[in-house]
Amino acid sequence: MAKASSEQPRSVSKREFLEAFAAIGGVSAAMTVLDGWGMGVASAAEAPPDLMGRSDGTKVLILGAGLSGMTAAYELGLRGYDCQILEARPFAGGRCQSARAGFTTTEVDGSTRTCDFDEGQYFNHGPWRLPSYHHAVFHYIRKFGVPMEIMVQENDLGYVQFDNADGPLAGRRVRKREIKADMRGYTAELLAKLADQGALNEELGSQDKDRLIDYLIREGFLNARDLTYKGTLHRGLSGFDPMGLMGPNTASEPLALTDILQSGLGNIFQGVTTIDHPATMYQAVGGMDQIARGFERAIGDVVTYNAEVQELRQDGNGVSVPYRDNATGEVRVAKADYCITTIPLGILSKLPTDLSDRCKEAMAAPGKMTVGKLSLQMNRRFWEEDDDIYGGSSTLGIPGHTVIYPSYGYFGKKGIMMSAYPIGRPAIAFGELSLAEQTEQAIEYSERIHPGQFRKHYDNKAFSISWHRTRYTEAGWSTWSPPDREKHLPVLREPQGRVYFAGDYISGLAGWQVGAIESAWAQIEKVHANAMAA
Amino acid sequence: MAKASSEQPRSVSKREFLEAFAAIGGVSAAMTVLDGWGMGVASAAEAPPDLMGRSDGTKVLILGAGLSGMTAAYELGLRGYDCQILEARPFAGGRCQSARAGFTTTEVDGSTRTCDFDEGQYFNHGPWRLPSYHHAVFHYIRKFGVPMEIMVQENDLGYVQFDNADGPLAGRRVRKREIKADMRGYTAELLAKLADQGALNEELGSQDKDRLIDYLIREGFLNARDLTYKGTLHRGLSGFDPMGLMGPNTASEPLALTDILQSGLGNIFQGVTTIDHPATMYQAVGGMDQIARGFERAIGDVVTYNAEVQELRQDGNGVSVPYRDNATGEVRVAKADYCITTIPLGILSKLPTDLSDRCKEAMAAPGKMTVGKLSLQMNRRFWEEDDDIYGGSSTLGIPGHTVIYPSYGYFGKKGIMMSAYPIGRPAIAFGELSLAEQTEQAIEYSERIHPGQFRKHYDNKAFSISWHRTRYTEAGWSTWSPPDREKHLPVLREPQGRVYFAGDYISGLAGWQVGAIESAWAQIEKVHANAMAA
Repeated sequence: MAKASSEQPRSVSKREFLEAFAAIGGVSAAMTVLDGWGMGVASAAEAPPDLMGRSDGTKVLILGAGLSGMTAAYELGLRGYDCQILEARPFAGGRCQSARAGFTTTEVDGSTRTCDFDEGQYFNHGPWRLPSYHHAVFHYIRKFGVPMEIMVQENDLGYVQFDNADGPLAGRRVRKREIKADMRGYTAELLAKLADQGALNEELGSQDKDRLIDYLIREGFLNARDLTYKGTLHRGLSGFDPMGLMGPNTASEPLALTDILQSGLGNIFQGVTTIDHPATMYQAVGGMDQIARGFERAIGDVVTYNAEVQELRQDGNGVSVPYRDNATGEVRVAKADYCITTIPLGILSKLPTDLSDRCKEAMAAPGKMTVGKLSLQMNRRFWEEDDDIYGGSSTLGIPGHTVIYPSYGYFGKKGIMMSAYPIGRPAIAFGELSLAEQTEQAIEYSERIHPGQFRKHYDNKAFSISWHRTRYTEAGWSTWSPPDREKHLPVLREPQGRVYFAGDYISGLAGWQVGAIESAWAQIEKVHANAMAA
Repeated sequence: MAKASSEQPRSVSKREFLEAFAAIGGVSAAMTVLDGWGMGVASAAEAPPDLMGRSDGTKVLILGAGLSGMTAAYELGLRGYDCQILEARPFAGGRCQSARAGFTTTEVDGSTRTCDFDEGQYFNHGPWRLPSYHHAVFHYIRKFGVPMEIMVQENDLGYVQFDNADGPLAGRRVRKREIKADMRGYTAELLAKLADQGALNEELGSQDKDRLIDYLIREGFLNARDLTYKGTLHRGLSGFDPMGLMGPNTASEPLALTDILQSGLGNIFQGVTTIDHPATMYQAVGGMDQIARGFERAIGDVVTYNAEVQELRQDGNGVSVPYRDNATGEVRVAKADYCITTIPLGILSKLPTDLSDRCKEAMAAPGKMTVGKLSLQMNRRFWEEDDDIYGGSSTLGIPGHTVIYPSYGYFGKKGIMMSAYPIGRPAIAFGELSLAEQTEQAIEYSERIHPGQFRKHYDNKAFSISWHRTRYTEAGWSTWSPPDREKHLPVLREPQGRVYFAGDYISGLAGWQVGAIESAWAQIEKVHANAMAA
């Protein structure tokens, strides 16, 4: 390592460097300093703020035991704060829930739905997938030792089927891999031939033109001699026989370019997967709620459950929060020096508070995302046994419908299939259906992907949620228009007297666990600064 | 399901159908009948042959307790055969091995190497990844209940670095995702603009031209107005801040097309992954040798270990195989009605046998693939903690060198990095190096991908194998030229008197577990036919 020099931190790890940097500059000031050195993207906050000093005995009342509330309790607890969390539900985690046998969800009208899946089966009806750059979540996963595994986001063996497509592919299910190979093959052929004929001579020198053609031959599986795409083994086989004398594989026939173009099936993928939905993502082993369980174990006995906040009051001396004990009906009052509220804005804005009109305007501003989710238990993993699909998804052109294969329990007997994930308008109609109606609709649609299998193997167990109809949530997440975000978020991020707002809704990533955690990190820094100054 | 008709087996699962079909037609005759119905590719042999009748007490001597030998013993055992396996090693599995603390491998010169990895760490130095259409392997995985998990074959977050590239990207590590997005973006731009200018008017009608341009806009993240590629968030971020007021992501800058073309970095991927190396593959939890352990449990006490075959003799009455008990040095003779040999051809062809000259010619025909593998134990998972890489690989342009990240133990403290996988010529030189020299070379190369990390975090524990130098194996796998395959494989697949050949080398998929298993399926059908006729 003789070449190590001051311009490249070759012997300092990114983590070490950032922790040192955060200690000097604080989280709010931390920057993505390493990217310039090609050391990868750093999250603004790689680690919780390094709060200097302790504030033993300062009382902080936290409203909501979701990930943001528990993050605040955990970090402040380490610095001597006396934290209490009021949680309306009988369990912690907020939306970080998993449905398994016995799990009950309650809607705003009081109706309940209890999951009856078989032992070992679960459904992440809340957060269900993490990309690897959401470092703040992984920080606690490591700290709390939450076992993780791969969540297969993209699987080219999944199918796509468009009932309303034009042309001969209408209604036909096709493997995603076939569409990718064929579209990339044909477009590579078209460009390679044009380049070969001189059409790019103004754009590219002759050497670069040859390099481009070489690239296209490889990318598109072209015949190097005549630059045509005639299919490839790698789009899928029509036969596989390991005992075949001249090799095991029989190639399948490519689809016609015009057929694919007419069908629109090429519009299901892009040159790379989106940044927050890479091909492989991560989930907690046994259910995403294991992340919440990790926090719960770490914070200790600071949560008051079944505690439904009635009002939020403050004066110069502290905060005062009357709450109803839902187990007894009794109303009690919790008092503290500071309050961090993580209550969804749509709910908090309806409660009596001492907050300013400006703050109330901000709280009322965001929209409430309507979101539903449905999973069905299947008594045979036909997608694995018959179709070689282990995780990933198939795609219909029907808004809100999904065929998401489970990324756990591979090779087992039964499995949980996520069959609907409506967001926005489709979620409203979905939420108005009964579970039986949702299930029937999902089966009817899904039969187009797995004919004869979906109905036959449905195990008569289903679970669904409509987050916008769920008590104590009333939305999948908050949605901000860009002007509202710019206008109102700065208000909510500043202390409102002794009240601080935390929760994914004050982050730039509503609906993601990383937004919840980093919102808490940002706010406890301010609480601590004020507590130390007091 | 009113539309179900005889032309589409809508209410029969593929598995059910094929099992029925195999029962009628036999494995050898089974065909990929379902593909025509769009029901997916069927392996020629979805399940072991349905051998009619029993042959209680017929003695079969099996040489070698690898997957083919154990498959034969398991299936014949179910039909009443009295099987004995002679295995030269003190353990079963053949090349289906995993190295963990205490595992010892022996070279042909008698030198040994013992793995000293930490508890919980292992290295699949034999087979290490299964694609989902290798049904024969999955058949036993299901039958024996071997726990499986995802092996991440492709991870776009891995790096590529070419020291000897031309142009400004020489020696620079770049995320694979960046290269994919940029190359697909620029080529989409070039083709979209040419199409827009009319260059494809002969090939495509005007509506298809517009559809193609729409596809390219999406595939290449083009600006829809001017059809240019100016980069995309999805190639990677230069900054990520969940508390960013106007959104969390800062886009990175695309590389220049000519820079990528000059560097050759675009030549590391194709439109789809290859058929046998899809993005997600499968591995047994805790080590691929757990598949061998499943067979071992299932076949019961039929293996004689440390039994090194000396000769292979047969006459009209049976087979007779003298073997040396390597524990005692004693030579014993095993006798049986039939023999199935799975001994590598390069070893068997050196032993005295009664086989015909024609058969001996066939046995001597294949080449022996030289193959090495090396893994290093790292005391910190810097690729996860610093680089967001969980599984997959990074790529240097150095033959035989690899940076393969472990697909297990995520978020843990230590990890096993596969650092060399030379095949062919590079494996010869690799095999002549000491473990220390192999390790030093791997570290030196790998530092180009992970500067300052590889050497710093190497935990002074390494394990390597050279399959062509390994006792009782002497090759990674057999290689056949197409003419040799056509000439000799039919000989080896036919009974040679009472001797039958099984092993991946008689399949069309040498070096894969599925070839080993299906070779046994094919041969036990012949053994059984002859035993029943006798």
